[in-house]
Amino acid sequence: MLRYARAWFASALALAIAAAAACSASRAPSTTTPTPSQEGTGVAAVQEAAPLLTGVEAVKAAGLGKMWTFDNPPLDYLEERYGFRPTPEWLEHVRLSSLRIGGCSASFVSPDGLVMTNHHCVRGCIAAISDDEHDYYVEGFYAPTREDERVCPGVYLDQLLEIEDVTQRVDAAAPAGVSAEETTRLKAAERARIQEECTSATGYRCQVVSLYHGGIYSLYKFRRYNDVRMVFAPEAQIAAFGGDPDNFTYPRHDLDVAFYHVYENGEPVHPEHYFTWSEAGAAEGELIFITGNPATTLRLRTVAQLEYLRDADYPARLRSYDERLTLYRELAARGEAVARRYRNTILGLENSFKQFVGYVEGLNDPELIGSKQAFERSFRAAVAADERLQGEYGSAWDEIARINRELTRLDPERRHASFANFRTLGLARDIIRYTAEMAKPAADRLLSEEDLAAAERRINSERPIDQDFEEKLLALRLAAARDALGAEHPYVQAALQGREPADAARVLIRECGIADVEVRRALVEGGVSAVEASGDPAIVLARTVDARALELARQLEELRAVEAVHVGRVARALFEVYGTMLPPDATFTLRLQDGVVSRYPYNGTFAPYKTTLYGLYDRAEAFDYSEPWRLTARWIERKDELDLSTPLNFVATADIIGGNSGSPAINTDLEVVGVAFDGNIEFFPNRFLYREDAAGRTVSVHSMAIIEALRKIYDAGALADEIQGMN
Amino acid sequence: MLRYARAWFASALALAIAAAAACSASRAPSTTTPTPSQEGTGVAAVQEAAPLLTGVEAVKAAGLGKMWTFDNPPLDYLEERYGFRPTPEWLEHVRLSSLRIGGCSASFVSPDGLVMTNHHCVRGCIAAISDDEHDYYVEGFYAPTREDERVCPGVYLDQLLEIEDVTQRVDAAAPAGVSAEETTRLKAAERARIQEECTSATGYRCQVVSLYHGGIYSLYKFRRYNDVRMVFAPEAQIAAFGGDPDNFTYPRHDLDVAFYHVYENGEPVHPEHYFTWSEAGAAEGELIFITGNPATTLRLRTVAQLEYLRDADYPARLRSYDERLTLYRELAARGEAVARRYRNTILGLENSFKQFVGYVEGLNDPELIGSKQAFERSFRAAVAADERLQGEYGSAWDEIARINRELTRLDPERRHASFANFRTLGLARDIIRYTAEMAKPAADRLLSEEDLAAAERRINSERPIDQDFEEKLLALRLAAARDALGAEHPYVQAALQGREPADAARVLIRECGIADVEVRRALVEGGVSAVEASGDPAIVLARTVDARALELARQLEELRAVEAVHVGRVARALFEVYGTMLPPDATFTLRLQDGVVSRYPYNGTFAPYKTTLYGLYDRAEAFDYSEPWRLTARWIERKDELDLSTPLNFVATADIIGGNSGSPAINTDLEVVGVAFDGNIEFFPNRFLYREDAAGRTVSVHSMAIIEALRKIYDAGALADEIQGMN
Repeated sequence: MLRYARAWFASALALAIAAAAACSASRAPSTTTPTPSQEGTGVAAVQEAAPLLTGVEAVKAAGLGKMWTFDNPPLDYLEERYGFRPTPEWLEHVRLSSLRIGGCSASFVSPDGLVMTNHHCVRGCIAAISDDEHDYYVEGFYAPTREDERVCPGVYLDQLLEIEDVTQRVDAAAPAGVSAEETTRLKAAERARIQEECTSATGYRCQVVSLYHGGIYSLYKFRRYNDVRMVFAPEAQIAAFGGDPDNFTYPRHDLDVAFYHVYENGEPVHPEHYFTWSEAGAAEGELIFITGNPATTLRLRTVAQLEYLRDADYPARLRSYDERLTLYRELAARGEAVARRYRNTILGLENSFKQFVGYVEGLNDPELIGSKQAFERSFRAAVAADERLQGEYGSAWDEIARINRELTRLDPERRHASFANFRTLGLARDIIRYTAEMAKPAADRLLSEEDLAAAERRINSERPIDQDFEEKLLALRLAAARDALGAEHPYVQAALQGREPADAARVLIRECGIADVEVRRALVEGGVSAVEASGDPAIVLARTVDARALELARQLEELRAVEAVHVGRVARALFEVYGTMLPPDATFTLRLQDGVVSRYPYNGTFAPYKTTLYGLYDRAEAFDYSEPWRLTARWIERKDELDLSTPLNFVATADIIGGNSGSPAINTDLEVVGVAFDGNIEFFPNRFLYREDAAGRTVSVHSMAIIEALRKIYDAGALADEIQGMN
Repeated sequence: MLRYARAWFASALALAIAAAAACSASRAPSTTTPTPSQEGTGVAAVQEAAPLLTGVEAVKAAGLGKMWTFDNPPLDYLEERYGFRPTPEWLEHVRLSSLRIGGCSASFVSPDGLVMTNHHCVRGCIAAISDDEHDYYVEGFYAPTREDERVCPGVYLDQLLEIEDVTQRVDAAAPAGVSAEETTRLKAAERARIQEECTSATGYRCQVVSLYHGGIYSLYKFRRYNDVRMVFAPEAQIAAFGGDPDNFTYPRHDLDVAFYHVYENGEPVHPEHYFTWSEAGAAEGELIFITGNPATTLRLRTVAQLEYLRDADYPARLRSYDERLTLYRELAARGEAVARRYRNTILGLENSFKQFVGYVEGLNDPELIGSKQAFERSFRAAVAADERLQGEYGSAWDEIARINRELTRLDPERRHASFANFRTLGLARDIIRYTAEMAKPAADRLLSEEDLAAAERRINSERPIDQDFEEKLLALRLAAARDALGAEHPYVQAALQGREPADAARVLIRECGIADVEVRRALVEGGVSAVEASGDPAIVLARTVDARALELARQLEELRAVEAVHVGRVARALFEVYGTMLPPDATFTLRLQDGVVSRYPYNGTFAPYKTTLYGLYDRAEAFDYSEPWRLTARWIERKDELDLSTPLNFVATADIIGGNSGSPAINTDLEVVGVAFDGNIEFFPNRFLYREDAAGRTVSVHSMAIIEALRKIYDAGALADEIQGMN
C-alpha cells in the first residue's frame, strides 16, 4: 500500500508546489504585487465595485459562510432562502438541546439525559475505562443497563443557557481617547469582571465572547454537567472504517457515533429540551440544520494574508511534510518491525499532507481568490464611501498587506533556522534556557513555571532519540538552509562549521553527547558554567544561535500582534457595514448552520447524497477486507440480519469545521436526522472562503444506520428504544 | 440534476481554460517559445540528454504505452518486467482467439463458436432485431436454444490468421532518388497490389498495415465470419448503469457484456482456439493481458503538436461545447417537452466536454509535458548522434513546430468564420456549391458524387431547423468573431453588415427564406442564376465568403499533409533508434496489452481494484433508484438470490483506448478474467502519453459477475454452462 500512497502524495505535492510556484508569475500582476487601487486608500476601488449586496445574495457573495449565532439568528435570511422562519421557541429548543464537549459538539436525544456525539469525541473516555481485560476501542462498549454504565473521568458537557449582549458595558470600559493598547487592556479587564460577576451571581460558567473581533461582546452562560457515563461506543474499526485513507473523504461508510448518559447528584438528568428522532432521516433536497461549536475559520483574512499562506507558509509546510514522509518511508522499508513503528507517524503525516494539499489547492483556485478579491473590493468601497468609516478602518488592509510582506521576508530564516522536528537540538536549547533561568531569582525569570517544568520533563525523558531519522532530516534541512539563506548566514555558519550538510548533520546528531539522558542531567546539575564550558556540538550550536532565535521569535510575535489589531479593525468594519447580516468567524461557541442535503459533482460523475450499508460491504469486499477496510466479526456474522438498503452516511451543504464533530443534524421538526463527523475533501478551502456552489459538504452518520446497528449488530434494543422514544 | 451538472461543468471549464491561459505565460520559456536547443538541429540537446534507455525503463520513459503487435511480441520486456515469457503457442492461441468486430474487439470463449464482446458493441444488432413488440435494448435478449437466436444483419467478425513482414517489398517499390510524393504513391500502389494478390490467392481479407508510419509494413490476413447471431444481451439499463454521468468513470457497476454465436454455412463454428473461463477472476497485483484493436493514439505527436492542442485547439473546443451546453440548458429550462427534446443532445455534449476536459487537464499537467519533453530530448539526441539519422530525420521536429505555429496563426479564422453548428448557413453553402457544380459537365466537377448526393439530401430534408438555438448561438459567435478577427475582417463585415451581432444573427437566421425546404428547392431548380440573384441573407453571406472558406480549407489541408510527412519521419526515426523495443501508435489492428490489476489513488483515498454487486445496489439506493441509476424489475426481484460479494467490475494498468471495447481480459493461463469496456476519468491523457505511475486504468466487467448474472438474473444456465465448459 505504501507504494500507492507514495505515488499519490508525490504527484499531489508536485502539482501543488508547481501550481504555487509556476503560476505565481502569471498571477502576480493582479494579486501578489498590490496595484494602486489595492495599495491606496481604497477610494480608487469604488469605481469598479458592485453595489452593496443584501440578504441571501450578500451571504453568498461574502464567502463568510453560514455559522450563525443564536444571539442574532438569521431569520430574514432563512425565510428568504428556504421559506422557513424559526420561532423563538424553536431556537430556544435547539440551543438548549445542544451541548459542547471537549473539543467537540453533542446533543440531548432523550428525556432521560441521553447524549449523542461522535465516537472520535469519546476516545479519551474509552481509553480511561479500558483495562487489561477489555480494550473497548477495539471491542466497542455497550451498557445494557444503567448499572453497566461507566463514569468518564474528567468529561463534562456545557449547555448554553443564556446570551446577553454586553457590548455597551465592555465598550464603556475604555473611554474615548485612550490608546489602542490601553483600550484592549481595559476591555479585557471588564470582560473578566463581567464573567466573575456572572459566575458568582448565578453559579454558571460564564464567558464573554468577542464576535466580529469586538463588534459585539456577548455574555454566554453555560450549565456544566460533570457526571457523564459511557453508554455506547462501537468498535473503532466501524466508527472509522477506511481509517486514515478514507478520512476527509466521501462517499463514506463510518458509524462514528457514541452515546453518554448524564447524571446530577447521582441521578439521571431529565432535560427539558432534547431532540427527538427521525425514523426516515433526511431526503435529498431537504433543509437541515447542524448545531455545534465550530472552532476556527480564517474567513476574515484579507487577500494579502491568504497570499502569504498560499505562496510562503503552506507550500513550505507541504515540503516539510513530504521531506519527513519520504524519510520515514525509507526507514520503514527496512523491515516489518520498523514499518510497524513508523506506521502511525506516517499515517498522521499523510493526513496532514492531505489537509494542506486541500488548502493549497483551494488557495490556488482562481475562483476562490477571485471571489475573495471581489468581496474585498466591494467591502472596501463601502468603507471608503463613508468618511468616518474610511478614517477609522480604511488603512487596515494596507497595514495587513505590509505586515504580510514583512512576514514573507522573515519566513526563510524562521523556517530554516528552526529546530523543529529535532529532539537533539531542542534538548540542547532546553538545557541552555533552563540552566540560565534557574540561575536567576524566581522573580526575574522570563519563562513561566509551566514552561520550565515542561523543559525539565523533556530533559529527563528516557525516551530514546531517533537518530537515524534526525540525522537524515538534518542533512536535508542544512542543505536547504544553505540554499535559502546563503553560506554566509550566521545560522548556516554556526551549523555547518565549514562542513558539508551530511557531515555537519552526522556531527550534530551522532557525536552529540546529550542524546544520553545522563549527560543531560549532568549538564543541568553543573548549571550555567557547565553548559558554557560544554563542547557538545548541539550545545555549541544552540548557544551560538539562541539569542538570534529569541530575537526572531520576538519580532514575529510583535508582527502577529500588530496584525491582530488590524484584523480587528477589518472585522469591526465588517460589522459596521453589514451588521449581523453576515455571520462572524468561528469562535468555538454554539452556532446554527443551515444546509441542504444534496449530491455533488465528483470524479467525472456525482457523489450521491447518501451511502448505504450495501456500500459498506462493497468497500470491505473491494479491498478484500484488508486494513483499514476490515470488518469485525459481528459485522460479518450478522450481515444477513441487516437491511442493507439502510442509509449509512449522507452529505449536506451545511457549513461546518473542526469543533463541529458530534453536532446533531436536525430537520425543521427538531428531529435528529444524523450526527455530523467530517467534511469531504472538497471542503478544505472552506477554511478561507465558503462557496455555496462548490462541492464542499458536511458528512454525517444517518439516523437510520444508528438504529439499525444498535438493534441488529449490538443487541442494544434498550438504547434504540430510548432514542426512538419507545420506552 | 441539471443544476448540478451545470455547476460542475462551469467550474471545470473555468479551471481548464484558466490553466491553459493563465499559466501559459509562466510556461512559455520552457515550451511554447522554442529554445535554441529545441529549435536548432538537435545537436545542442545532446549535452543535456540522458543516455538512451533500454528495456522496461525505455518503455516507461517513452510514454508510448504498451500496445504490442503480434509480429513483434515484447518477449524480453515481459520477461524482464513480470518474469513471464510467452511461448509462440501461447501467442498464437491468444491471436486466434481474439476477434475484431465493427469498431470494437471480441473473442471466442467456447469450442462452439461463442463470442464475447461489450453490450455497447452490439447495439446495432439489438436495434435490428427489435420490433414493435420487443425493444431488446430496454428488455435485454436471451436465446435459450440455438433456434431462438437471431441473425445480426451486416455484422461480421475478423480473425487475424497470419502476419507477414512485407516491408522489403513495399520499400523496394520506390527506387532511391524519387520524390517524397512519388515514394508515397508507389508504396501505396504496391500495398494495394500485395493486398489483391493475397486475397485472390487465399480468399482471406488482406490488409497491409503501416506500423511506425512506414517503419514496418505488415500483411495481415483475416478470416471473416459473416453469420453472427445474437445469443445474449442484457438490458441497457444494467449494461450502462449510471448512464452518461458514470461513463468514463470508476468505481463502476456495469454489466457491459454480450454474446454471439458464429456460424459458417449454417452450421456452428467450432474454433480451434478459444479462451476458457476463470472461475475466480483476477486478484489484486495479478498480471493480465487485454487483446484487442486500439484505434488511435497520438503518442508520437511532438511537443509542438501537443502545445497546439493544449493552447489553441482543445480550449476552443471546450468553449464551443460550453457555449452550446449553456444555450441548450437555457432552452431546456422552458418546459418539460423542450427538456425532453434536448436531453440526449445535452448528455452527448456533456460527455464530449468531460472527455476534452480530461485531455486539457492532461496536457496542462506539468508532469505529462515534462515527460514528453524529456523523451523528445533524449530521442533527438540519439538521432543527432548519428550523422545519417540526423541528415534524414533531424529537421522533422522543427518542421512540425513551424507548421503548428502556422496552424495556430490560422486558427482564429478557421473557427470564427466556420458555419459549423448552423444548419441555416450550411444549407446556404450547400445550395451555392451544389448549383455551381451541377452547372458543370460531370467530368469537371470538384465535388464527388457522394458529396453531391449528401448535399442534395440535406437540401431536401424536411427536418425543421432549430431557429431558436441557431439565432442565439450565432449572436454569440458573431460577437466572438468580431473580438477575435477584428471588425474589418471580410468575414465579420459580410456577416454583420454594419449590424450588432444579435441583430445580424436575427436577420441571418430568422429572415432567411431558405429555412423553408420549398424555397431551397426553388433555388436549386432555378440554378446558378437564381442563386446569384437571391437576396436571402444567408445565401448572400455564403456567396460572399465561400471563396475564402475554400481557400482556407485548402491551406489547412496542405499544412496537414506536410505535417503528416514529417510525423512519418519522426516515426521512422523512432523505429531506427529503438527498433520494436517501443510499440507503434494504435492502428486498429490486434495488440497484446499487458497490465496489473491494482487500486489507485483517487478522491483523497484509494479506488479499490474491484467493485461488487453490493456496490451496484448501494449506488442505486444512494440515488433512490432515479435515472440513470435505476434497476430493472428482475434485478430488484431477484436480488436476494445473488451473492452480492461477487466482483462486478475491476481495474488494471493495461493500456487501452477506443477500439478496445469488448476486448477479453485474460490471465497467463489463457483464461478470461473479464471483458474490457472503458477507462476511468484519469485515463484520458493516455491519448498523448502513457504513464506507468499515473492513475489511468482499464475498466473491465469481472468474469464472476457475468456467470452470476446469467445464472441468477437471466435464467441463462445453458449459456453459463457453455462459457464454463460444463456442457
